[in-house]
Amino acid sequence: ALAAPAAFAEKTSPRLRWRLAASWPISLDTVYGGAEFFAKRVGELTGGRFNIRVYAGGEIVGGLQVLDAVQQGTVEMGHTASYYYIGKMPSLAFDTTLPFGMNYRQQNSWQNFGGGNDLLNKEVFSQFNIVSLPAGNTGTQMGGWFRKPLEGLGSLKGLKMRIPGFGGKVMARLGVNVQTLAGAEIYPALERGVIDATEWVGPYDDQKLGFYRVAKNYYYPSWWEPSTQFSLYVNKTAWDKLPKEYQAAVHAAAAEVNVRVMAHYDAVNPPALKQLIDKGVTLRPFSKDIMEAAQKNAFELYEELAAKDPTWRKIYGEWKKYRGMEYAWFNVAEQGFADFAFPQVPRSEL
Amino acid sequence: ALAAPAAFAEKTSPRLRWRLAASWPISLDTVYGGAEFFAKRVGELTGGRFNIRVYAGGEIVGGLQVLDAVQQGTVEMGHTASYYYIGKMPSLAFDTTLPFGMNYRQQNSWQNFGGGNDLLNKEVFSQFNIVSLPAGNTGTQMGGWFRKPLEGLGSLKGLKMRIPGFGGKVMARLGVNVQTLAGAEIYPALERGVIDATEWVGPYDDQKLGFYRVAKNYYYPSWWEPSTQFSLYVNKTAWDKLPKEYQAAVHAAAAEVNVRVMAHYDAVNPPALKQLIDKGVTLRPFSKDIMEAAQKNAFELYEELAAKDPTWRKIYGEWKKYRGMEYAWFNVAEQGFADFAFPQVPRSEL
Repeated sequence: ALAAPAAFAEKTSPRLRWRLAASWPISLDTVYGGAEFFAKRVGELTGGRFNIRVYAGGEIVGGLQVLDAVQQGTVEMGHTASYYYIGKMPSLAFDTTLPFGMNYRQQNSWQNFGGGNDLLNKEVFSQFNIVSLPAGNTGTQMGGWFRKPLEGLGSLKGLKMRIPGFGGKVMARLGVNVQTLAGAEIYPALERGVIDATEWVGPYDDQKLGFYRVAKNYYYPSWWEPSTQFSLYVNKTAWDKLPKEYQAAVHAAAAEVNVRVMAHYDAVNPPALKQLIDKGVTLRPFSKDIMEAAQKNAFELYEELAAKDPTWRKIYGEWKKYRGMEYAWFNVAEQGFADFAFPQVPRSEL
Repeated sequence: ALAAPAAFAEKTSPRLRWRLAASWPISLDTVYGGAEFFAKRVGELTGGRFNIRVYAGGEIVGGLQVLDAVQQGTVEMGHTASYYYIGKMPSLAFDTTLPFGMNYRQQNSWQNFGGGNDLLNKEVFSQFNIVSLPAGNTGTQMGGWFRKPLEGLGSLKGLKMRIPGFGGKVMARLGVNVQTLAGAEIYPALERGVIDATEWVGPYDDQKLGFYRVAKNYYYPSWWEPSTQFSLYVNKTAWDKLPKEYQAAVHAAAAEVNVRVMAHYDAVNPPALKQLIDKGVTLRPFSKDIMEAAQKNAFELYEELAAKDPTWRKIYGEWKKYRGMEYAWFNVAEQGFADFAFPQVPRSEL
């Protein structure tokens, strides 16, 4: 009788070779490295029996076709950001970030203990035959690169800025002439003055694209991405056939990547920011009137969507309540400490 | 040839029954639940072959004897907080928290990508024949319960407060009459006025101990615990004999618990704080003069230790540099967003 579980484990531990399509080029080593770590860890956890090979964006499908590829079963897995696909369904944004949404810890809490992940899988990802799990984060991103300093809210009128997604929708309401450009087109457009501004991620990733050479004003914070979650997608048909042991490996490895990608960004962003400042970049906060107008317009947009999109309405109600609870809580001990302690360290310690 | 790895995996996947001694009573369900989740996940990851049974504090050894028990091999594993053992070696505190130390993300970054975990295992835990991994966190704790409101720094003189560890050492320098009391003794001492104040964790855990009934002033933040990390201990002799697959399971499950315990605290603390306020508790921030004097004294204490303790000096140098880098970075995008957005939500949304 004692041998029965082992025999069971052997029978249910098939040799699998899966493919994971990542949205990232290899050069985004924090997040691409997260996808590779995930695959390596699942291999280690299963004695090499569950083999996952990672493909960078463009190798099997384009970086923005990962959802389609997982849905159709072209690949069994993806590592991506759900907000790339809001054209299919706006509610996918809740899985990544929204303007004036939650920070890293708040998003993790909602996903894991606030019912967020279950709700998103039930209401959103089931429609794409996908199971999604949180698998990495950037934290609050930077607001991006502006050729000229802004002079308050009025200076956004007519400004040509590359900013996709919900951030772009809110910027458009503030009068910005929103541009959509693929990664490789951004730098030349900014250099030639075809656009006045662009946003990307944060110091470490932004530095590689060289924006600092042609736009010296680096704004913060990205009020449109208070924390940007990456997700691990699994084709649901393939997921349902996975042995429980392999499902556990996917869960645990995705959670480990969630910690590691965030920890990696927090390790590499400070020295990158220091280098950017040393190269003549000026850090500038968005003015209060811009922040206020953006927040007002963001929530007006959410309410408009709630009025016409039942899925959005359902998730938005839950999300907004959780967000309020977390903001009010963070405003006590966490901010009480941060507001006193962090400003006492000068930027020279970056 | 293709079958070789499977045969290898079977040979190296022994049936193990290990015991994990946790420092926690079952009633601390966030962190005790983390230990139980860890054991459950390792079981799932290994098809039930690596079986870990969790014992609450007091079942095998007392909650503050976990390090000894793991070191001596009484149990193979522990789930504890390293700062309980600073009497053995002050540098153990770096594995948990220090006054004016790092927040949750900063600590994770240092441990995983700043060399912190390797350094601590090499310089500290090797001396106890232990391997330690981060496995949970409370975030910034609350400052505790005071029978009477404080009137600035001067009112700390002679105040009888239960506060252990480095927080107590700094409080003593500020004139506090520091008391050490075990968990069960605190409430009656506070009720009878034997002590004027006590600290514990945060709203959810504190509420269970009922301090609000006898001390209505709930201070924040715990400048002595800006984020309190829990650690998974493994006896190093036992660790070195573990198959790689099981070592991977321990790593992944500990990281998952790291995310989950933090997410759980962030889910349960806001409603608990709301209930406390509804019961007549008043939230009060420590005054700026207290914060400033505490910070000054904390770093004086660290420098004194650095002068006489080579292990402390080595780790403190690394830790302080990383802390400065993280503080300066968080003060840009993360605080730029939080300082604008969080205060706009009223406490009624807790």
